[in-house]
Amino acid sequence: MNQAIQEQSRMKTTDHPLHSPGLEGVIAGESALCQVDEGAAGLRYRGYAVGDLAEWSSFEEVAYLLLLGRLPTRTEMEEFSAWLIRNRVLPDLVQRFVDDLPPGLHPMDVLRTGISLLGLVDPDGQDGSHAANLRKSMRLLSQVPLLIAGNHRARAGSSSTRGDQSGHVAQHLLLLLAGQKDGETGVAMVQALNVSLILYAEHEFNASTFAARVTASTLADLHGAITTAVATLKGPLHGGANEAVAAMLVEIGSPQRAENWVREALAKKRRVMGFGHRVLRQGDARSAIIQRHAERLSHLCGDNHWYETASIIHRIMQEEKGLHPNLDFYTAVAYLLMGIPRELSTPLFVCSRMTGWCAHVIEQQDHNRLIRPRALYTGPAPRTYVPLDRRA
Amino acid sequence: MNQAIQEQSRMKTTDHPLHSPGLEGVIAGESALCQVDEGAAGLRYRGYAVGDLAEWSSFEEVAYLLLLGRLPTRTEMEEFSAWLIRNRVLPDLVQRFVDDLPPGLHPMDVLRTGISLLGLVDPDGQDGSHAANLRKSMRLLSQVPLLIAGNHRARAGSSSTRGDQSGHVAQHLLLLLAGQKDGETGVAMVQALNVSLILYAEHEFNASTFAARVTASTLADLHGAITTAVATLKGPLHGGANEAVAAMLVEIGSPQRAENWVREALAKKRRVMGFGHRVLRQGDARSAIIQRHAERLSHLCGDNHWYETASIIHRIMQEEKGLHPNLDFYTAVAYLLMGIPRELSTPLFVCSRMTGWCAHVIEQQDHNRLIRPRALYTGPAPRTYVPLDRRA
Repeated sequence: MNQAIQEQSRMKTTDHPLHSPGLEGVIAGESALCQVDEGAAGLRYRGYAVGDLAEWSSFEEVAYLLLLGRLPTRTEMEEFSAWLIRNRVLPDLVQRFVDDLPPGLHPMDVLRTGISLLGLVDPDGQDGSHAANLRKSMRLLSQVPLLIAGNHRARAGSSSTRGDQSGHVAQHLLLLLAGQKDGETGVAMVQALNVSLILYAEHEFNASTFAARVTASTLADLHGAITTAVATLKGPLHGGANEAVAAMLVEIGSPQRAENWVREALAKKRRVMGFGHRVLRQGDARSAIIQRHAERLSHLCGDNHWYETASIIHRIMQEEKGLHPNLDFYTAVAYLLMGIPRELSTPLFVCSRMTGWCAHVIEQQDHNRLIRPRALYTGPAPRTYVPLDRRA
Repeated sequence: MNQAIQEQSRMKTTDHPLHSPGLEGVIAGESALCQVDEGAAGLRYRGYAVGDLAEWSSFEEVAYLLLLGRLPTRTEMEEFSAWLIRNRVLPDLVQRFVDDLPPGLHPMDVLRTGISLLGLVDPDGQDGSHAANLRKSMRLLSQVPLLIAGNHRARAGSSSTRGDQSGHVAQHLLLLLAGQKDGETGVAMVQALNVSLILYAEHEFNASTFAARVTASTLADLHGAITTAVATLKGPLHGGANEAVAAMLVEIGSPQRAENWVREALAKKRRVMGFGHRVLRQGDARSAIIQRHAERLSHLCGDNHWYETASIIHRIMQEEKGLHPNLDFYTAVAYLLMGIPRELSTPLFVCSRMTGWCAHVIEQQDHNRLIRPRALYTGPAPRTYVPLDRRA
């Protein structure tokens, strides 16, 4: 327990009412996973600055760190990666579900159902031990990209394949969701996707993670808690943000139209997506990292129009509203340049945040306490029941 | 807004730390649905004492009250009931899912997946308006018993039927889950089941309801929020309790063995299921209501052994620990007498609590604010990343 932070939290109590709408500023539990630092480091995952991880490490390594609590040795890393690759397969029941779906369904609804279904046939069954939860988590990391890609191919009408059985997670995902990308540009895309997976992996008690912990706190199973998280991430106030940014960029269409579009949106008090954050009010260090990758991809692809459009919006929002872009803003530019279908942005977020969710579920159940708050009753005063046949 | 309660809640703030483990005593939002009254009334649903509702009303009427905010007129009640009966049908995709499942799956995992799947094909699609959410809720009320019964028949190896298309909810459920029950005993069973559905319908911010509200607070869809609730209810610290009571009664086997069994459990500090409540510390008024029905069924069935066994446990727990039975305790006796398969206790709970969950989701989205608390960081202090190839 970090004594200083705990002291600070105790000291604050008299300034805060017991009832905080949306639980804003309320501490709902303890976690050793993620430190939100408003200073230069932004976020830290188990003590490591997210910027250092994005610069030097791989998504697999971050998954290992989050799930197992420390960085792997070289041998551990190789074994972990090989395990993930070997488990890139869907059980028959789930593969049939994906193959038989009618077209036109919402990808997040399919993913929610598919993950729930994976829980029905997981080899570890109803075992909720730490070790079983860890294996279930690792299996999900390998299975979820196949669920997403399978459904996407079903939507696109092309035949289902089980994906390439080699390659790192970022490489595998890019192949599944956007097809083969060659040369220097392909390498840069894998790097950018790897970085975005690292940046999205974990973010303390955001709504989906917190919802998953509430589910886990009844000692329900890990797949149930992750189903909860996916259901929660679907909402436009949460995971939908980077898809909404992409939609906005597509609507604007060109850098020439950007300034007018934003000024008009501000005048009409329309919300401009991709700015501000409930917790990170001083700006989001992750944003600058993914911005650099988006800029680089934009040069390599010889297509500046998304990046320029975004830069103009960024400048005006900062000048006019003092708001900083959040992680979703330039990520949307990077994904557009990679050719990842816009409706797969939130499912792709799932592939990354799965690591944080699973680590939180395991942490919750390792030190469990049921999460059960109270409501402030605002309904009618006590009233007398009149039976139906005597009612007007 | 109830001024007195609000004042009281504000006044309490200095006694409570901002950080309360499990959010115990923390007010996480406002609700007009359920008032927890530690006095004689126990719970009130939208102002009406739950005891009066259990005595005089039907589950359909309580569902109407919770979902629409007031008691129906006679005509409204007839229309509502007829609508529920007409909607007792599963969409083809979902019926196929139920029919094709292998045997031996956990009924709550099937239910969670089935409800998520219903969201994929609901006629109101992604419409999240108040009116669409209301229709989705009513459809779920009609569909969920068919999901449960279909899977149960698949488990039992018997052929799937779509259930009787007439009858009130309690009558329909008893038929689906326990088969035809005739005469005075059959009538008493329907009455007892009706009462238990009313008593379980709503209970403020319990874990499953609260989790559903977190999901709904991102503006995710109603089916997603209900999927979350089902995932959460599955946990043995929440919905599993009445099944656990039944398992305990079966394990004890006869009234003659009850006293020794309980005293031995207490001596070994084993948990005796069905006693105490996080919120209702002075006893649960709902327990006495369902106890009367369990006693009556026990006479009518000419089978006193479950009820007597339970009474002995009740007496000893009160004498030795000062603990009162909660709603789950005598409900388990009533369900055993009805012949409802023990593993369907929690799915049956879903049929009832569905009303409260849906009413909460609608309430949350009518006055939405994202639920996003904070965590107290307890992990490692900032540390320096060492790249993989320079790591020991």
